Amino acid sequence: MTAKTDKLYDVTPRTVVSIDAMGGDRGPLPIVLGMAASAKKNPELHFIVHGPKDELDILVGARKVLIDRCEIRHCDDAVSMTDKPSQVVRNGKSTSMWSALECVRNGEAEACVSCGNTGALMALSMIRLRKLPGVNRPAIAVLWPSRSKTGFNVMLDVGADIKADSKDLFQYALMGVSYARNGLEIPLPRVGLLNVGTEDHKGRAELHEAHELISQYEQLGDYKFVGFVEGGDIPGDKTDVIVTDGFTGNVALKTGEGTAKLIGELLRQAFQYSLLSRLAQLLAVSSLQRLRKRIDPRRVNGGVFLGLNGTVVKSHGTADETGVSAAIKLAVTLANSQFSQKLAARVASVNTSAHSVENAASEAE
Amino acid sequence: MTAKTDKLYDVTPRTVVSIDAMGGDRGPLPIVLGMAASAKKNPELHFIVHGPKDELDILVGARKVLIDRCEIRHCDDAVSMTDKPSQVVRNGKSTSMWSALECVRNGEAEACVSCGNTGALMALSMIRLRKLPGVNRPAIAVLWPSRSKTGFNVMLDVGADIKADSKDLFQYALMGVSYARNGLEIPLPRVGLLNVGTEDHKGRAELHEAHELISQYEQLGDYKFVGFVEGGDIPGDKTDVIVTDGFTGNVALKTGEGTAKLIGELLRQAFQYSLLSRLAQLLAVSSLQRLRKRIDPRRVNGGVFLGLNGTVVKSHGTADETGVSAAIKLAVTLANSQFSQKLAARVASVNTSAHSVENAASEAE
Repeated sequence: MTAKTDKLYDVTPRTVVSIDAMGGDRGPLPIVLGMAASAKKNPELHFIVHGPKDELDILVGARKVLIDRCEIRHCDDAVSMTDKPSQVVRNGKSTSMWSALECVRNGEAEACVSCGNTGALMALSMIRLRKLPGVNRPAIAVLWPSRSKTGFNVMLDVGADIKADSKDLFQYALMGVSYARNGLEIPLPRVGLLNVGTEDHKGRAELHEAHELISQYEQLGDYKFVGFVEGGDIPGDKTDVIVTDGFTGNVALKTGEGTAKLIGELLRQAFQYSLLSRLAQLLAVSSLQRLRKRIDPRRVNGGVFLGLNGTVVKSHGTADETGVSAAIKLAVTLANSQFSQKLAARVASVNTSAHSVENAASEAE
Repeated sequence: MTAKTDKLYDVTPRTVVSIDAMGGDRGPLPIVLGMAASAKKNPELHFIVHGPKDELDILVGARKVLIDRCEIRHCDDAVSMTDKPSQVVRNGKSTSMWSALECVRNGEAEACVSCGNTGALMALSMIRLRKLPGVNRPAIAVLWPSRSKTGFNVMLDVGADIKADSKDLFQYALMGVSYARNGLEIPLPRVGLLNVGTEDHKGRAELHEAHELISQYEQLGDYKFVGFVEGGDIPGDKTDVIVTDGFTGNVALKTGEGTAKLIGELLRQAFQYSLLSRLAQLLAVSSLQRLRKRIDPRRVNGGVFLGLNGTVVKSHGTADETGVSAAIKLAVTLANSQFSQKLAARVASVNTSAHSVENAASEAE
């Protein structure tokens, strides 16, 4: 009997998340600690965790909160950070990553979380979960600390694919809107298309075509299109969703993280400079902690794979307990909002409409 | 008699910088204030400033330090931020931007500084100053606060052109190296090629070709190639020069600036939170000022146009006195190091060698 059918007879509501315990840079310990942290906060939460049974038995067994809420599935292998996605697709059946995705595919779990190799996870997800009908390229979306009311903006694609044509960018817009609605509870998300300037004549040809498409389906897609936005708007309050190709998005994401990290280091140095500044740091400790929490990348850890039949959250390879727990929380939020199903419906409705518009146009010719 | 010939008979060494007083978002006042600030620090500095004579007479006349060190050239028009580059090239003869570049073209000034429309400034620079022999696409380079010894990394292109093929990227590497050597005094600059991962198989085809080229000419170009780098390495200490196309570079630059600005705002808010944190701010004021100075974008204000016969520095449109003065300082450093001539020689020597290698290869076939 699977977890899904169990649910019908269970009195308390439960959410099952499938966890790949291997493939992160720090081994399975921070993963299990993150699971325990999430389990403490959310009594509905259950896990199926994938990896070497002996090791996981010890780690999971030592956390009381996980007893009766965590099933261990033994896997002989793990995907490493240097494995090529194509190899993993061909020879990866015995890996914890494959096994973790399989639980979403067969309905045992509502979402999957992995800290492993991004390229391999996306390739496996596409092969095993398959793309939503009408989606050409799935995308990875992240939440970016911003001046917006929710405190976050959605940016996609941050690295599922290095290329995107105008139709892909349009689909990213639809997917990002769905994520902003279900993940951040924004009823009418604003969408911006990333470019090197806000003037209409700037940027590449595919951006102009995408501008046209996103603008055209504003009403049907139930979003507000603010047009072209620039890099400075990614942490701004001009738009809730930033649409870009995976190459640009990946560079922007890592540049933003790198800049925040450098400033954090310089700030620490500044406070170490003199006796007076060390005293100041003591006095400001709670304010600084609030700031740190606000921009801590661990707390918004988790790229969500959009455009697949199922919810997959990719956590940072270096994630610690806090980071893994944040990724699990994100997976649960999306699973509970039935995000995947809603996204599928939205893409289908816009595609149907686009199709009928095209048909009407060709019939009229 | 021009400033250049004057120089021969003058006892004190002098550097003449040509300044476009118009086209910035705040009008000519911060420009003249910046000139005065620079003139105070550097007794060798002379200016030719371009804009409406009546207004400039008053502004310049009110600054004693500029008397006898600043010639005003009247111009009827100014390029606005919304003017299209192609229009400015056709009809811009009466603008202050055109006039300012003309002084570099005819040798009256050693460098030009403008706060105006980037696209128009680049288009005019290409038409009036012309590209260096062997350079296909000029680039805009910026200094990025980093963990490197000098405190800065060079990144290019940040928006001269949205496209770059592998040969362009290779030339950017040569130009960036020359800039790092002359602007930052790094004898053997390290070069990194921006990509979405450091593994060899990642990224677009033109990046793999550029990787090959940059690697091949390491010795002749007198640099150290560190291979692919990621967004997080832009403020890091892994490389001194970051090479990328103008689209990606522009997005990265603005994302970094936007992130730094957001963190600055949040930091100020954090210190306003409680009485204790306000007291802490008072105690830490000098440490925080040091930090602010370190990451203040105004102090590294100025994108340098590389690959032209002459030095052109583009200052931020919103630059204030400090920003304009920083851009002038950069122009003077580059002019005094005879950067343009050195860059031309380096590109020519690599081109000659590449040509003979190609010839040898085709002869051998």
